[in-house]
Amino acid sequence: MLNFTVGPVMADDEVLAVGGEQVPYFRTQEFSNVMLENEALMKEFVNAPYEAKAVFLTGSGTASMEAVVMNLFTEKDKLLVIDGGSFGHRFTQLCDIHKIPYEAIKPERGCAVSAEMLAPYRGKGFTGLLVNIHETSTGVHYDPQLLGDFCCEENMLFVIDAISSFLADPLDMQEVGADVIITGSQKVLACAPGISIIVLGEKALKRVQTNESKTMYLDLKDALKNAERGQTPFTPAVGILRQINARLRRIKLNGGASTEIAKIKAQAEDFRSKIKDLPFEIVSESMSNALTPLHPTTASAYDIFLELKDHYGIWICPNGGDMKETIFRVGHFGAQTTAHNDTLILALRDLQKKGLL
Amino acid sequence: MLNFTVGPVMADDEVLAVGGEQVPYFRTQEFSNVMLENEALMKEFVNAPYEAKAVFLTGSGTASMEAVVMNLFTEKDKLLVIDGGSFGHRFTQLCDIHKIPYEAIKPERGCAVSAEMLAPYRGKGFTGLLVNIHETSTGVHYDPQLLGDFCCEENMLFVIDAISSFLADPLDMQEVGADVIITGSQKVLACAPGISIIVLGEKALKRVQTNESKTMYLDLKDALKNAERGQTPFTPAVGILRQINARLRRIKLNGGASTEIAKIKAQAEDFRSKIKDLPFEIVSESMSNALTPLHPTTASAYDIFLELKDHYGIWICPNGGDMKETIFRVGHFGAQTTAHNDTLILALRDLQKKGLL
Repeated sequence: MLNFTVGPVMADDEVLAVGGEQVPYFRTQEFSNVMLENEALMKEFVNAPYEAKAVFLTGSGTASMEAVVMNLFTEKDKLLVIDGGSFGHRFTQLCDIHKIPYEAIKPERGCAVSAEMLAPYRGKGFTGLLVNIHETSTGVHYDPQLLGDFCCEENMLFVIDAISSFLADPLDMQEVGADVIITGSQKVLACAPGISIIVLGEKALKRVQTNESKTMYLDLKDALKNAERGQTPFTPAVGILRQINARLRRIKLNGGASTEIAKIKAQAEDFRSKIKDLPFEIVSESMSNALTPLHPTTASAYDIFLELKDHYGIWICPNGGDMKETIFRVGHFGAQTTAHNDTLILALRDLQKKGLL
Repeated sequence: MLNFTVGPVMADDEVLAVGGEQVPYFRTQEFSNVMLENEALMKEFVNAPYEAKAVFLTGSGTASMEAVVMNLFTEKDKLLVIDGGSFGHRFTQLCDIHKIPYEAIKPERGCAVSAEMLAPYRGKGFTGLLVNIHETSTGVHYDPQLLGDFCCEENMLFVIDAISSFLADPLDMQEVGADVIITGSQKVLACAPGISIIVLGEKALKRVQTNESKTMYLDLKDALKNAERGQTPFTPAVGILRQINARLRRIKLNGGASTEIAKIKAQAEDFRSKIKDLPFEIVSESMSNALTPLHPTTASAYDIFLELKDHYGIWICPNGGDMKETIFRVGHFGAQTTAHNDTLILALRDLQKKGLL
């Protein structure tokens, strides 16, 4: 199957080979070395400050979102949440569950956040901002510099869930002043799903140390203590962590984060240039390079997903909830080439010929 | 490397082949079918009642332990915890974190729980019992029938963490009256680590539905709702779930749970018969078939672990904490044969020859 979803995506041969190997015992110096290298490369690729730390949780991106909300904030905080789609909305739900006071900025679906939208929240005692920098449900990429400058001026902690934006869009932790960056194994890292990653800067680390632990599995204090020696408190998804190692090393050899971002940008631009005469509307402004969100004007988005899956060996990414029939997404990461885009375009034209598009 | 640890362990060729495949997109009927089959086979192998449900969490066994404590119990409960080693102790820590009242029974290290030890807790209003039925840190296998009868007579919920006992020791959910059984992907299932599994009976399911959710990631209400259609609330470790499917199907084809248990029992007995003249003491009574816990009387347990790892290509399982120097464990599950036992014995005899044992 040709996979244009937003995760899991197609892995390269090196990552697949690791997946097919026996998973080694992990309470060893050998595995610690793998983990310490993973941490160093993750920090390098987001340009994290020297004192930052990275932890690897066995879980989905939501596990890391919840870990950050639980470990960094308390009922004494007052957070601002960018709630522009289902993933931003998840941050508000996490604040509800853990009784963290917050207000939500709700940009219209598919729209970015502007300085004007932030202005009313100045000087109101907010202590942190939570954002899915690429709202994966709609494809909007918010401006990290705009949000970072606001957080800096307001002395707020700046938490970026960059789950599907890491290595797809430029993101410099020091330049934008982010305190936390979250991502996962199955997005641009293009490994099997099961690991999410949190990079924490100095202020965030201090918060973790100060706050009382309210969980064992998602306890970042314990994760950070174990990470000092390249270990985890509980048996992690060792196989996926070894895949991540192979992939991070390959990205480094290829020229680092900027090369990977350029590749995905080119892949996105190639696709977007080729769909100009197809009956699709791009539904979001300020798009991430990671994916293109499309509204088919002549057919059901979900029917197109099913047709491509069942008759062409191609997965595009359906949307859920009230966007199911109107929007699908095409991801541009994983082991893709522009030839794969051509195959997808051919299939779409064939659907058009059959009157299904 | 020859792997005699207690997880991750050696996978068979079928499971490895799945690990080397591309991970498919999962919001599809095809993947739902895999998950529904996984649930049915898990239920079959523990002889769960018809109305029981199984959920698959992306996380270690501790994630499922915490999920069960958080979702089934509240501050109105009064639990009894078998605290006979580091995993049993973890249940007491989880009760502390989530403010669930409990008392701990602390059998001496390496010792089983007897009816006499339970007697003082009769008629004292306990509402549930938590046990790691095979205390993996010391190798003790507690008697599930004894504990189950006690829970039945006292009208207590019976929670069994069978992480490394599932498919190594007989366990019949209906016969022993268990309400919850927990296990993980990297034990006898011999897949990559990253998935833990919870089978819940009717009383446990009712508890989950009645109690308020205090977490998003470990919320069993949400997991159960999604499981109805063979899905999960968040992106799961799809690759590992597909490995589990291959493995469960193979176990079924080979004759089911009893065949697998017999295989591991034979593997354990073979090993135990072959070490009789080596300078080891078995440190626990009432052993699980899953592993043999050994105290070397002439050398440091951890030094033996390092020697075997660095010079013989063999992993045995070191212990942590205050048992590090005195105890190591030899696991009997994963793709092992008695010929592998011979290789390990040869290596141990060689260490003896060198004066290192």
